[in-house]
Amino acid sequence: METAATHIVVLGAGFGGLTFCQTFRHPNARITLVDRQNHHLFQPLLYQVATAGLSAPEIAQPIRSILKDSRNVTVLLDQALDINLATKTVNLEHNTLHYDYLVLGLGGVTSYFGHPEWEQFAPGLKSIDDAIRIRRQILLAFERAENARHSEELDQLMTMVVVGGGPTGVELAGAFAELARYVLKSDFKHIDPQRARVILLEGSPTIMAHFPPELQTSARTQLEKLGVDVRTSARVKTIRKECVELEDGTSILAANIIWAAGVSANPLTKKLGVELDRAGRIKVQPDLSLPGHPEVFAIGDLVLSLGDKGKPVPGVSPAAMQMGKHVASLIEEEVTSGPVPPEDRTPFEYWDKGTMATIGRSKAVAKIGHFEFSGFTAWLAWLGVHLIFLVGFRNKIAVLFQWAYSYFTYKRGARLITGLSNDAPLPPKQN
Amino acid sequence: METAATHIVVLGAGFGGLTFCQTFRHPNARITLVDRQNHHLFQPLLYQVATAGLSAPEIAQPIRSILKDSRNVTVLLDQALDINLATKTVNLEHNTLHYDYLVLGLGGVTSYFGHPEWEQFAPGLKSIDDAIRIRRQILLAFERAENARHSEELDQLMTMVVVGGGPTGVELAGAFAELARYVLKSDFKHIDPQRARVILLEGSPTIMAHFPPELQTSARTQLEKLGVDVRTSARVKTIRKECVELEDGTSILAANIIWAAGVSANPLTKKLGVELDRAGRIKVQPDLSLPGHPEVFAIGDLVLSLGDKGKPVPGVSPAAMQMGKHVASLIEEEVTSGPVPPEDRTPFEYWDKGTMATIGRSKAVAKIGHFEFSGFTAWLAWLGVHLIFLVGFRNKIAVLFQWAYSYFTYKRGARLITGLSNDAPLPPKQN
Repeated sequence: METAATHIVVLGAGFGGLTFCQTFRHPNARITLVDRQNHHLFQPLLYQVATAGLSAPEIAQPIRSILKDSRNVTVLLDQALDINLATKTVNLEHNTLHYDYLVLGLGGVTSYFGHPEWEQFAPGLKSIDDAIRIRRQILLAFERAENARHSEELDQLMTMVVVGGGPTGVELAGAFAELARYVLKSDFKHIDPQRARVILLEGSPTIMAHFPPELQTSARTQLEKLGVDVRTSARVKTIRKECVELEDGTSILAANIIWAAGVSANPLTKKLGVELDRAGRIKVQPDLSLPGHPEVFAIGDLVLSLGDKGKPVPGVSPAAMQMGKHVASLIEEEVTSGPVPPEDRTPFEYWDKGTMATIGRSKAVAKIGHFEFSGFTAWLAWLGVHLIFLVGFRNKIAVLFQWAYSYFTYKRGARLITGLSNDAPLPPKQN
Repeated sequence: METAATHIVVLGAGFGGLTFCQTFRHPNARITLVDRQNHHLFQPLLYQVATAGLSAPEIAQPIRSILKDSRNVTVLLDQALDINLATKTVNLEHNTLHYDYLVLGLGGVTSYFGHPEWEQFAPGLKSIDDAIRIRRQILLAFERAENARHSEELDQLMTMVVVGGGPTGVELAGAFAELARYVLKSDFKHIDPQRARVILLEGSPTIMAHFPPELQTSARTQLEKLGVDVRTSARVKTIRKECVELEDGTSILAANIIWAAGVSANPLTKKLGVELDRAGRIKVQPDLSLPGHPEVFAIGDLVLSLGDKGKPVPGVSPAAMQMGKHVASLIEEEVTSGPVPPEDRTPFEYWDKGTMATIGRSKAVAKIGHFEFSGFTAWLAWLGVHLIFLVGFRNKIAVLFQWAYSYFTYKRGARLITGLSNDAPLPPKQN
């Protein structure tokens, strides 16, 4: 008698979902991986696409390509609309899937803390399309600045505000400062690079809150050396077109405002009927399963903490990958030997490999185990780690080449304004 | 007494306009170069972006970057709306320019021979945005095919029609055939690569009309070896959504229809009040100036022929570059020694360096002087020539790397579906 193979549905081909599919090995199970994009995105380098350093295909790899040797995985380009835990069904836009096990790796979305209307004025950075939109907007501001006639207009065009002093905000602010300093200077005739201002706003008293205090200070100093105006305890009151208003009454006029302040879990978690935090993340069991649903697991940025006494796991890619691997081994075991009650399963333990953020050319901060680095050493470590984890041999070489090129020439390789015909504003009317 | 510098306005930063700016050297003249894109596009490789072989930034270079050492050139990101030859004025969308000399290098647009309504069903390939749109559409068709349940639906999804058997059509058809043959086979689980069909439609009795007969035959044989269905004397009657109807009554159902059949001059030429052919191209004087306007020159794809007895110059990049250089030397001379009547100026002579087209891996046709090549030798020549002329050191290395990668791995480096959120259709609803 043939046993019907166990069907595992994985939602999301981010670091967690992809690692699950790459790790899971059992002949008597089939996996359906669903993502609404055809590519896995190496999100840690997305800010370099937004700042014209890398081109989009260099940090994205077709999911099918990555998994082409996993014969038991079917990849579907589709979007999950609803999940019914009672009937073990996932409704996609173009299909309906029944599962024996469900792995939720849907990741996060940009969150505006209850002000979705700010998005149009301060785009976030989660997808390739976001990055290309930001790149277009920034490069267009430079073009407008080159033709600006009035001093106030020029100031506004040459000002960039990054909201949020976490790693993404810090990396963006550093990359913008370098773009303005080096690229503007050599290519534009009328722009005075001294005029370019990059302002990093952080609501709490310090940037890089999850880093040790010495590295926070070092990151701030390195940013300031690049000319970034770092303002901590600066809470945003409202954002309008090309204007940020702070709670202390200050207004900043800036042609480019980028939002890097908040991430919340994919809103689909709200339909699960389980306990969530304010950011929509799930309080999973120690084994990463959902309370009351041992056949459903959440991984990556969807996870708040492990049980009641668990401490929060940071929303970084190594955590998501470790979770994917953990869930794969739990399900493999059950497919082999039958169900195990959640309380008897091996609990997930996060192994903190360290954290790092790059600030610019030869500038970074890193914490690996008990070691803390900053400056050139941290930057080299950052380069190495990101190259090792970048998916796809071709992409590694291509990115290495772009970085070497930028390092030695002070140029950026992807200064392309595209999509002009659709929605981008053209330079303003002149007098 | 200081003489006011001569002002030269150049419209378009294609091969012609850019070469003009790079060649022109005279301290007592200033040039304003206007383009509605921020980048110069290496159009001969655009089909490789459309077929997921190269990423957009690899064949595009910021115009400012290319011209950063030309201190007398000002680059404007703007669009020409009208030209007044009597008042020597160009109206841009955001500016008005007065010129002493005007160089028109506006290039061509896709022409549907009086059927603009076909464009929505059969996009042409002139810009980066076009290429990314085609890439998205083709890759989505593969995704839909993977999930298709019905045989007829699958056939339609796996059929690509290229209309037009000139070099662009031949190159596109070859690249599509390779994409379907090699990429589909390895990455998709359900698609049978034998089912993929690429049909090349040409209205005249032969493809590659401007090539010698032996090379036409060779190109056809090489395409057929790749599995391309080449149909000559096949005239299109009408194009509907995913359907091409031919004049002989045949209908072809195809999810992807690409238009490579016609190019006409930028429609701005219609506002000049000079004699044009049906494709909007200008009958210039032997020196490339407009009849009656010795201070206005047309170069590149805007030019039909040289005077009444001149033979047509092909719309290829070497011709545009030679024209840009010729006009630069004429104007330089006049700025130095005063005006010369058009009839006394050196006439332009096109030096035919040869033509070539690539059909696929190790497949091409080339004619250089009296030598005709096909197959591997022609392909190597094609690679070399395109690398030499590709603007920008970084781009050369990046493209060389991508080509080497694709050659040895049979993979494509830029299989990215982007812009999904805006206008692209998702896979169809399934039963």
